[in-house]
Amino acid sequence: MEHLTSKLLQNAAGDIYPCHMPGHKRRTHGELPEALFGLDITEVDGFDNLHMPEEILLDLQKKASELYGAEETFYLVNGSTCGILSAVSAVVPECGRLLMARNCHKSAYHSAYLRGLKLSYLYPEPVEAYDFLDAVTPEQVEKALEKETFDAVLIVSPTYEGRIADIRTIAEIVHKKGIPLIVDEAHGAHLGLGKGVWENSCRLGADLVIHSVHKTLPSLTQTALLHVNGNLVDREKLHRFLRIYQSSSPSYVLMASIDNALTFVEEEGEGAYEFFAERFAQMTEKLSACRKIRILTGEKALQDVGKLVISVKNTGISGNQLYHILLEEFHIQLEMAAESYALAMFTIGDGPEGYERMEQALLAIDKRLDAGEYNCMGMKTTDVSQTENPVSQPAVATTLTKAWDGETEEVALADSIGRVAGEFVNLYPPGIPVLVPGEVIDESFIQNVRRWLALELNVQGLKESESEIFVNVLTI
Amino acid sequence: MEHLTSKLLQNAAGDIYPCHMPGHKRRTHGELPEALFGLDITEVDGFDNLHMPEEILLDLQKKASELYGAEETFYLVNGSTCGILSAVSAVVPECGRLLMARNCHKSAYHSAYLRGLKLSYLYPEPVEAYDFLDAVTPEQVEKALEKETFDAVLIVSPTYEGRIADIRTIAEIVHKKGIPLIVDEAHGAHLGLGKGVWENSCRLGADLVIHSVHKTLPSLTQTALLHVNGNLVDREKLHRFLRIYQSSSPSYVLMASIDNALTFVEEEGEGAYEFFAERFAQMTEKLSACRKIRILTGEKALQDVGKLVISVKNTGISGNQLYHILLEEFHIQLEMAAESYALAMFTIGDGPEGYERMEQALLAIDKRLDAGEYNCMGMKTTDVSQTENPVSQPAVATTLTKAWDGETEEVALADSIGRVAGEFVNLYPPGIPVLVPGEVIDESFIQNVRRWLALELNVQGLKESESEIFVNVLTI
Repeated sequence: MEHLTSKLLQNAAGDIYPCHMPGHKRRTHGELPEALFGLDITEVDGFDNLHMPEEILLDLQKKASELYGAEETFYLVNGSTCGILSAVSAVVPECGRLLMARNCHKSAYHSAYLRGLKLSYLYPEPVEAYDFLDAVTPEQVEKALEKETFDAVLIVSPTYEGRIADIRTIAEIVHKKGIPLIVDEAHGAHLGLGKGVWENSCRLGADLVIHSVHKTLPSLTQTALLHVNGNLVDREKLHRFLRIYQSSSPSYVLMASIDNALTFVEEEGEGAYEFFAERFAQMTEKLSACRKIRILTGEKALQDVGKLVISVKNTGISGNQLYHILLEEFHIQLEMAAESYALAMFTIGDGPEGYERMEQALLAIDKRLDAGEYNCMGMKTTDVSQTENPVSQPAVATTLTKAWDGETEEVALADSIGRVAGEFVNLYPPGIPVLVPGEVIDESFIQNVRRWLALELNVQGLKESESEIFVNVLTI
Repeated sequence: MEHLTSKLLQNAAGDIYPCHMPGHKRRTHGELPEALFGLDITEVDGFDNLHMPEEILLDLQKKASELYGAEETFYLVNGSTCGILSAVSAVVPECGRLLMARNCHKSAYHSAYLRGLKLSYLYPEPVEAYDFLDAVTPEQVEKALEKETFDAVLIVSPTYEGRIADIRTIAEIVHKKGIPLIVDEAHGAHLGLGKGVWENSCRLGADLVIHSVHKTLPSLTQTALLHVNGNLVDREKLHRFLRIYQSSSPSYVLMASIDNALTFVEEEGEGAYEFFAERFAQMTEKLSACRKIRILTGEKALQDVGKLVISVKNTGISGNQLYHILLEEFHIQLEMAAESYALAMFTIGDGPEGYERMEQALLAIDKRLDAGEYNCMGMKTTDVSQTENPVSQPAVATTLTKAWDGETEEVALADSIGRVAGEFVNLYPPGIPVLVPGEVIDESFIQNVRRWLALELNVQGLKESESEIFVNVLTI
């Protein structure tokens, strides 16, 4: 099996002069390392074409299919974003109907907008005692499919916080209706590839599965995979949309990094996965000694290995404050901060140091919390003990496409109750919409927004001006 | 002015432990260089967010605006592809009307498909004595705008072969109608930045300009810029579509390489441009001594510096044969081969070696052609002296969207005359469609395809099976 990086390295060391793009001619012209530019080529002889693969790129994609148990796999260079856009566009006709989990990534909403889809939502339950949503359940899917007819179902698993859905049962339910199941498994590229982690959705019956290779495997940012199975997906349409939503000059460096990551799993995965699953379990076990901080655990079937959800509910500090203490004092950069919890990510790329530093830091912070020390630090200890469900279930007045394309005006948040949203409002990260164009603004949305802003969370889609907060609504 | 690479290098050298994506945790797990992974981060504190820039990325984009003379500039990590999709989507409403040069890149056709647009074409004239199309002329644009009403005009300049349009006059004509001009200047990111090259379209009145930074400047593949000027573009819509068509995890390495390339132009551009323009002119001058091979020259206003169009018409060999002689015997990789010519690309990234090797190789080949040597080499010397205009003007039976979404069947090429195309047919590179879904197949298309296949050019969109060639047509 030929590897893309080896082939690129050989090419860089050869004497063939590049009278073609890219314009750097394999040399750096700045601070970026020279070695990088040597590998950065275009579709020259011998290096195949991602948009019509017949040689090495086809071989690499086939190898990825085998690894994950998919019939067909595509390397993606525009992230899971283009995988989700392509999957939805391929299986739902224009103006068709999509049943979708409400905690999907914004790209899922974007696909619905582009194709003028009619959306119905699955609203996952909040995870008990935490302020985020669980994965959807088979019962929820079954109930929704009984009520209406859809062209496809799209869910996210693992969620950003690591909640895993029962894909096998959900796929069976969806297939009874003769429609495909799309699983946004962007956070689960590591699943099914080693001991100690849950199975991946390709082997559990999903028709289309999207993996961000960079999120949980050692690949470069912006790399992803799309897998397809079964006969419910129009493969020609899928190829078409992948060509549309991705650059016609895909980066060979990004593609090589996917090959690198999957080769590492194949060659060294056994030991890496063993260390990862065991060391992560040890850490959560050690941290269970905390008196104030709580770590989310769960059955392997429900909570993914690697996502460390650290709750500070009722401790006197917010998730955002924990995030900053860890960064500024302990030099640990977390993945995200939410209202009453924060999230750390571990992968097979972590060595012992990361686990040790995290354990020491959290145990130290917990001791201080227990001793009431942060009360004297002058930090804003907003009371986050009475938080709400972060996503309510607002009424839908009109389709996303009509609302987002409609005439809008800015109104003060206080005056917006009952008005129809004209713009997305997101909490970032992870960028899951808390308000979607076409939804009716209610009291709980306004309360949530005010609280998030008080906690200095990053709320996108609002305008702040002269200490007033404005939200975009339809003029109708 | 802070540079992104410096900041990423500092971060990589620091002791902050990454409990976040990407999963490689700044270390290589394969053959790709370790230095690359150190720089590959996500939107952590201090590194801004491409989709909502407020700090360093906003500063870098502003610097790029100043360099090109644009009001607003966006860094793109999904190539010019996403720039064209976003530009068209932002200024033409769904099912709107676009006037477009027929030699546009396939992404322009894709934007029309996604938005259900009604297309009218500007058919550029062929460049005399060569078998490719020129840039469109102001007269053509004026005539087309008199006949019908459009929402926008999209043209490509420089073309793949380096033909430059009179953007200033075209912009004036387009603006008289109160609509925006989009210039796909993917091949012209080097324009307007130094002596000896033509001005860039931002300074000539275009409303939206797309630059592939990797094509002609020393940046990594898949990097591009989108510039916007004036009040004919809905900026909010433009931001929206850029967020839709690009990964929500944009690569910092790709972004850093754009900064690198533009910084190089600012700091060392004067000398680099001077060498580039002078040395390229010297080369064309030297090659004018050839007796068989001809090099396309032209007024600076018409033919871009850097694109070496090498005609072998009437020499007894095809463009494809020249391409392979240069690769196999002289170890020079060209950009592309066409029927009767081949294309080499030079940029400010080339040193003296590239020019010297090309001069020596072409002079040697010309000598052999003149001596009739290739006639004895047993190569297929297809007669390419009587080639046709590579793009005819087929009748349009229905819109691209309807045709591409319609029911299709495969028919033998010989039986396809009069049928309506259901799939694109492209010559690759450059990937400009020679047949667009919805167009009526005529005799000249079939003749062209047969000749291209005989010349072993890469014709995409056909199926070959048991020595018969099939083309996809509508079943109606």
